Amino acid sequence: MANTLDSHILIIYGASGDLAQRKLIPAVFDLYRGGYLPENFALLGASRTDFTDEEFRNKVVFENDLFDKEGHEDKLEAFSQLLFYQDLKTYDGAEDVKKLKARLEELGQEFGTGSNYIFYLSTPPKLYNTIPKALADVGLNKPEGGWSRLVVEKPFGYDEASARQLNEELQSVFHENDIYRIDHYLGKETVQNLLVTRFANGFFEPLWNRNYVQSIQITAAETVGVGSRGGYYDESGALRDMIQNHLLQVLAHVGMEPPIRADAYSIRGEKMKLFQALRPIRGEQVAEQVVRAQYTAGKTKDGEVVAYRDAEGVPDDSTTETYVAMKFFIDNWRWAGVPFFIRTGKCLPLKVTEVVITFKNPPQALFAQYDDYAIKCDNQLIIRIQPDEGMAMEFGMKVPGEGFRVKNVDMDFFYRELTTKDVPESYSRLLLDCMKGDPTLYARGDSVEQAWAFVDPILEAWKKEEAPLAFYEAGTWGPEEADRLWDGIGGGCWRNPDSSLTEKRHYTEL
Amino acid sequence: MANTLDSHILIIYGASGDLAQRKLIPAVFDLYRGGYLPENFALLGASRTDFTDEEFRNKVVFENDLFDKEGHEDKLEAFSQLLFYQDLKTYDGAEDVKKLKARLEELGQEFGTGSNYIFYLSTPPKLYNTIPKALADVGLNKPEGGWSRLVVEKPFGYDEASARQLNEELQSVFHENDIYRIDHYLGKETVQNLLVTRFANGFFEPLWNRNYVQSIQITAAETVGVGSRGGYYDESGALRDMIQNHLLQVLAHVGMEPPIRADAYSIRGEKMKLFQALRPIRGEQVAEQVVRAQYTAGKTKDGEVVAYRDAEGVPDDSTTETYVAMKFFIDNWRWAGVPFFIRTGKCLPLKVTEVVITFKNPPQALFAQYDDYAIKCDNQLIIRIQPDEGMAMEFGMKVPGEGFRVKNVDMDFFYRELTTKDVPESYSRLLLDCMKGDPTLYARGDSVEQAWAFVDPILEAWKKEEAPLAFYEAGTWGPEEADRLWDGIGGGCWRNPDSSLTEKRHYTEL
Repeated sequence: MANTLDSHILIIYGASGDLAQRKLIPAVFDLYRGGYLPENFALLGASRTDFTDEEFRNKVVFENDLFDKEGHEDKLEAFSQLLFYQDLKTYDGAEDVKKLKARLEELGQEFGTGSNYIFYLSTPPKLYNTIPKALADVGLNKPEGGWSRLVVEKPFGYDEASARQLNEELQSVFHENDIYRIDHYLGKETVQNLLVTRFANGFFEPLWNRNYVQSIQITAAETVGVGSRGGYYDESGALRDMIQNHLLQVLAHVGMEPPIRADAYSIRGEKMKLFQALRPIRGEQVAEQVVRAQYTAGKTKDGEVVAYRDAEGVPDDSTTETYVAMKFFIDNWRWAGVPFFIRTGKCLPLKVTEVVITFKNPPQALFAQYDDYAIKCDNQLIIRIQPDEGMAMEFGMKVPGEGFRVKNVDMDFFYRELTTKDVPESYSRLLLDCMKGDPTLYARGDSVEQAWAFVDPILEAWKKEEAPLAFYEAGTWGPEEADRLWDGIGGGCWRNPDSSLTEKRHYTEL
Repeated sequence: MANTLDSHILIIYGASGDLAQRKLIPAVFDLYRGGYLPENFALLGASRTDFTDEEFRNKVVFENDLFDKEGHEDKLEAFSQLLFYQDLKTYDGAEDVKKLKARLEELGQEFGTGSNYIFYLSTPPKLYNTIPKALADVGLNKPEGGWSRLVVEKPFGYDEASARQLNEELQSVFHENDIYRIDHYLGKETVQNLLVTRFANGFFEPLWNRNYVQSIQITAAETVGVGSRGGYYDESGALRDMIQNHLLQVLAHVGMEPPIRADAYSIRGEKMKLFQALRPIRGEQVAEQVVRAQYTAGKTKDGEVVAYRDAEGVPDDSTTETYVAMKFFIDNWRWAGVPFFIRTGKCLPLKVTEVVITFKNPPQALFAQYDDYAIKCDNQLIIRIQPDEGMAMEFGMKVPGEGFRVKNVDMDFFYRELTTKDVPESYSRLLLDCMKGDPTLYARGDSVEQAWAFVDPILEAWKKEEAPLAFYEAGTWGPEEADRLWDGIGGGCWRNPDSSLTEKRHYTEL
């Protein structure tokens, strides 16, 4: 399959690391198999390990256990011939970058890729600033007769100030449009599909506002604890790790205004507007609207887990949160007065990410004489981001028989019904967009800062111990304190999802 | 199971006829099995055939092939002991009615039913007037110390004038609230559920108006022809037989305003208002908005059929329609400008009754650059009345992969998922309501007249040959002329339903 992508070389910094092996190399292989790569293409791995090209190929392709190659073994050899390796002393040393440049020119000639480069930084964040500078020193940020793009992994800063500083540094050497801040949640089909659901249909968007929506909740639950990564995790916590980036991006897709066009400028502009409309949670409000908690010892799906504070690398008195539940508001015309809820945590009963739109009850309880249906008949639209990607609607139907008794039922749709092909992996989709030069699904610098601006005052209040730390037993749906967020808003509650939308019985006996 | 129904006797006029055997006796048996009958109850069959009680029981219970008794044989004997028979000379003779009264008094004493009577007229319509008068002559219309209700089968008149006259005659001897004009479509769960769908949910009703609805269509398709009943059918035709009663009742449930209460007064009042708002189709408009047609020879699911005009009992030059398709408008605030379509016919490819609400497209075709989705992405809500009672929603979702291609998918809900019990038969439900004295699901006299007032000018134009008769081959979806009704309204078309919502593949390969 021919395509119109520019020929280029993809350079992966940190190519021997976990992310490269688990996600990036397999994603490039997916693109290779699908015929999406340009005709002239090479991948250059770069890191401090001492590999030959051959050793690198063995490590990331043939001996890579994190890479599910089943059924495609015949294509691996040819694919591996596109992979090369350059060892570096320090990633950012002047000598290193010269060596790298020379190697790129050599490969460029051999493969006819010209001077087009994607630099993917799969390295510790402290290098996000120094590597681009080093590239600029030898002109690789703006190569003559070609283009250069920079892909940066999360975390992008650890607060607003550091994100702003990092943006300034990157933007001093790369144009904002060439900086691709990757958030793999935006690569998920179901997150992108939120835009299609809302804007390609006549019957969702008219209801998608304060007049008809009672509340919106987003849940991202993990079953795993921190495992052996406690040392790393303790530096960030759930608010930084999940909410500031992934879940606020999901929120933006749920809440943004219709963009003028389906392109990077319009879509990212609307997301920025949504972030600007987030009502800040400050000082005393933090204790009222945000619940932070840590898991204690318990039993999850995967077995016994020790308390977070007893995990490897976690200090005994750590106050880092493994769970956050929060209520907040969006101050714009569409959402004024509608409470939004976000919840995420580790060691919860289920691995699931979903958005639940709860609609207001009808203004009259017409059939109340037959039933107490009014209290159980919330209309909900459930958008399942993962797993079992799909959608369900819950609404009331008449129970067969006398009178007009009402019972909740649901209709559902599963993404896997839409195609016999696999739903594409986030990283393949996002990499391909970067190869095309389309940053629509990457976070724009200003909106990353804006998301930090929302999160910062909460982190600050926690630091000052202005809000208590709660605890929850591993394997439960979190602390009781989270339920109290729903008080005083006139109905609604957390929807603790079933293990699978699919297996869910439509019905309990009437 | 005890219940609070008044004791009474159910008198079925025409008890040896087809309807009684096929529907009424089985419906009473269902109520008996379910414990719905009052403790003191008897059924008295009346007709001109000469039966003993025992012979009657044999005919309508034990030897009744039209009655599916499977699995309940053990209850038949006890049930049959509630059945009695009274032979009549003429149905309406003075002597007959005295004999009947004496028998009722005797049974009333024996069974302790008091003087409560339901008279069910399962007779030729010409008797609808004379039987009630005869009952009144001996005071059975207003029995001392009890109540008396009259159930009348369709057809209720053959035009507005005759319906009005019949109403006047009935109302001169029975109170309007005691006259139960049965329309078995109103006994269908899915028709009743239209009210619950609309009025017990927050997310349908806000869309249910001219702002969001592009068009509404109702299809009632039969696969059978007239068979050996051509002589009877030729006197009525599809407009009288299906539309004036059943489909306009369905329309009323789809289109009416929310009633103040879920009771007979409010619901029937709102239905009357809808009928009053029907914009009449007169004179030349009939040819433009209504297509009448007759089937010619062809092949249906059930095999070869001869042309309607060649059917037994049908004149060679008959112009009676076996198919009607029409477009019309409802002149009120909710529906101004929204085209409504009704279509019914015999010898169509499928037996199905469904309502399809087509919603307007979004105001912007945001993803048009990726696809020609705009033209295929109508949002539809499909309400299946029969068979496969249920609901489906069709809407656009993102096709997995690059860009934002949109494809229609559906979500569905089937009524049988709601209960493990059988969906109750129309006649059981309606009979039970009559026993309770609740006429909500029976047609009110004035609205029957109003429905005729809508239909009359069309019948008149046809009589004057002001609109042509079209023809369609048996086994097809009707004449081409019907498609032209959709011209000039800005989109939409007849939805020719799949054979089964259930078996329908969600997907064709992308």
